[in-house]
Amino acid sequence: MKQSNDHGSLEELRGQIDECDVQLAKLLARRQELVKKAAQAKALHKDAAYSKEREQYLMQSREQMAKAAGLPAGLMSDVIKRVLRESYRSGGTGSYPKLMQGDGKVVIIGGNGGMGKIFTRYFEASGYEVTGFGHRGWDKAQEYFENARIVIVTVPIDITIEIIKKTAPYLSKDTILCDLTSVKGPIVDAMLKYHQGPVLGLHPMFGPDIKNLVKQVVVTVSAREQEKSAFLVEQLKLWGAKTVECDAYDHDKAMSIIQALRHFTTYAYGTFMASMKADLKQLLELSSPIYRLELMMVGRLFAQDPRLYADIIMSSERNLKLLSDYVEHLKPELDTVMNKDAAEFERRFLEAREYFGPLSEQFLKESGSLLAKFQDQR
Amino acid sequence: MKQSNDHGSLEELRGQIDECDVQLAKLLARRQELVKKAAQAKALHKDAAYSKEREQYLMQSREQMAKAAGLPAGLMSDVIKRVLRESYRSGGTGSYPKLMQGDGKVVIIGGNGGMGKIFTRYFEASGYEVTGFGHRGWDKAQEYFENARIVIVTVPIDITIEIIKKTAPYLSKDTILCDLTSVKGPIVDAMLKYHQGPVLGLHPMFGPDIKNLVKQVVVTVSAREQEKSAFLVEQLKLWGAKTVECDAYDHDKAMSIIQALRHFTTYAYGTFMASMKADLKQLLELSSPIYRLELMMVGRLFAQDPRLYADIIMSSERNLKLLSDYVEHLKPELDTVMNKDAAEFERRFLEAREYFGPLSEQFLKESGSLLAKFQDQR
Repeated sequence: MKQSNDHGSLEELRGQIDECDVQLAKLLARRQELVKKAAQAKALHKDAAYSKEREQYLMQSREQMAKAAGLPAGLMSDVIKRVLRESYRSGGTGSYPKLMQGDGKVVIIGGNGGMGKIFTRYFEASGYEVTGFGHRGWDKAQEYFENARIVIVTVPIDITIEIIKKTAPYLSKDTILCDLTSVKGPIVDAMLKYHQGPVLGLHPMFGPDIKNLVKQVVVTVSAREQEKSAFLVEQLKLWGAKTVECDAYDHDKAMSIIQALRHFTTYAYGTFMASMKADLKQLLELSSPIYRLELMMVGRLFAQDPRLYADIIMSSERNLKLLSDYVEHLKPELDTVMNKDAAEFERRFLEAREYFGPLSEQFLKESGSLLAKFQDQR
Repeated sequence: MKQSNDHGSLEELRGQIDECDVQLAKLLARRQELVKKAAQAKALHKDAAYSKEREQYLMQSREQMAKAAGLPAGLMSDVIKRVLRESYRSGGTGSYPKLMQGDGKVVIIGGNGGMGKIFTRYFEASGYEVTGFGHRGWDKAQEYFENARIVIVTVPIDITIEIIKKTAPYLSKDTILCDLTSVKGPIVDAMLKYHQGPVLGLHPMFGPDIKNLVKQVVVTVSAREQEKSAFLVEQLKLWGAKTVECDAYDHDKAMSIIQALRHFTTYAYGTFMASMKADLKQLLELSSPIYRLELMMVGRLFAQDPRLYADIIMSSERNLKLLSDYVEHLKPELDTVMNKDAAEFERRFLEAREYFGPLSEQFLKESGSLLAKFQDQR
């Protein structure tokens, strides 16, 4: 009889957990309502959609509440972070203050592309008048560019300079000319050459699949008359982005590593797996979360636009040199393992550890906590 | 005056949010208490620490509650998943039913290593008697092996076969001999050769840094007298692991890709960055979440044990052949980009897309949702 009693008690406990969760859902809904009202109050004061200070304060105070309630460390702040994301997201479809003084509109050349659409949405949500057109719109260009205050070029990289050249004659000396290309040096040079007014190069460090701009990096290259385009950088911040001002050529050097080398190696890893016809189903079956994550980072590339990746990888001679150096670098590494030279492997390994410094430990910890979330999800 | 009123109202709203969160913390604490009681009730009935069915039921019913309360999709189930993780974790330090019938103890050779410690902890939490010893324990071997029912060898891979040979004479015909090596073919063969009783090869697909076994994959190779070691596989499941039975040599073939190729490319990427002395601080400053994640997956490797990675990478001739094929494969890929042959790049890209099939889209979606969590975290 003991067994059936225990089962009864398990059922009872599950019933109480259900009740708990109904209350939890109601409480979260009430919280969302309050946050929505607070966002409206903030928008009235032209406060940014995202404030790091406020988030830090929230996290600290919530952990104190959690401790007082006897909860394990990290649980409450994780829950609040998840709830905050929802408010940022709904913020993305809400409205923002417009920081531009005076009149004039925003013209986005290539406005129907993925990136063009995101910026159109944000500008419109802030009360800007936006005109977008593509390669078929040039016969109406005079009309489109009328009263343009901000002009953003977001077209495939190999025709960007040509389009800048074609655009410049329509612009006044007060028009801010921008691009969204992943290369900055030659593009910013072209904007400075063909246009006489303010020039602001932008590199949004994300793909068109993002849900909103919160915590996304946008590199800014304020190349001429920074004071005239400063409001636009502030506007990006207000939308939640993290802007990083950078020299155009320093930016390009960093991107060779951040984008070109990474994408090339991921691409080549994927094409190698395809050429081997490795059994993906079996690989996944045998993969713990960390290995699934590794495979995911490769496979996700191929759901995206090959043209975009070709553009990024082949965009400069520096990139090609770097990739060729990388392939060269693999030869001694391969020799080391072919010779089963564990001592040499270890030596090189420890050199890299020194290079990464405290970051390798930090990354291990960070990835552990990320993997925990990845596991929650699956 | 309007402004100060609004600010007052923002303050008021924030006060209400604070109150909301105090209630939230209390509610979560109450929920944890109920879950703890339910876990105790489950343990009495030898139910597994993790049940996929129960989790699926929970997720569905919670989303219905959330919908009824007017919450956006996904929020409530994410919160519950986070809370569940906490219960799995505390489960890891709790107690589990012992599935072994009859008496006998567990002997772990290499019990002081990372993996040995994890298994010691779990066996002890399930009421098993565990003896662990390392290379200095062999003079007391007779005593250690007395009444051993399960013997697990977890020593560096290059001495594993030697240790198996040394161990076998101490075992009875009923002792289950296991190893935890990342190579199964030759190791399982050695166990079959030197030991007469049940043989169970195990490959825990995770590093010693995991917090608990929930959702971690353990590959099992039931090589002899499966009926005698079946309880041990069930015991792993009870601890939350996902076990996958596999042929030893099929396993090794898959691991060449899942582990050796992946670790080698990550290692070589890291040593290349180190050799270039790339400015990590600047790279991170310019990295959006997805690029930080990519860099993190490289850097985390170097916080770990070089010996372990050398072992995994150099563990078989097949691995070396695969790595050498990979480096060969990079040559035509490099030529393609050096020639700026975007059409050929696209052709190869689309071939890989076809190979990944629906998985590439699925991975893109999955990584998007993971990145959202990664951003919450930062």
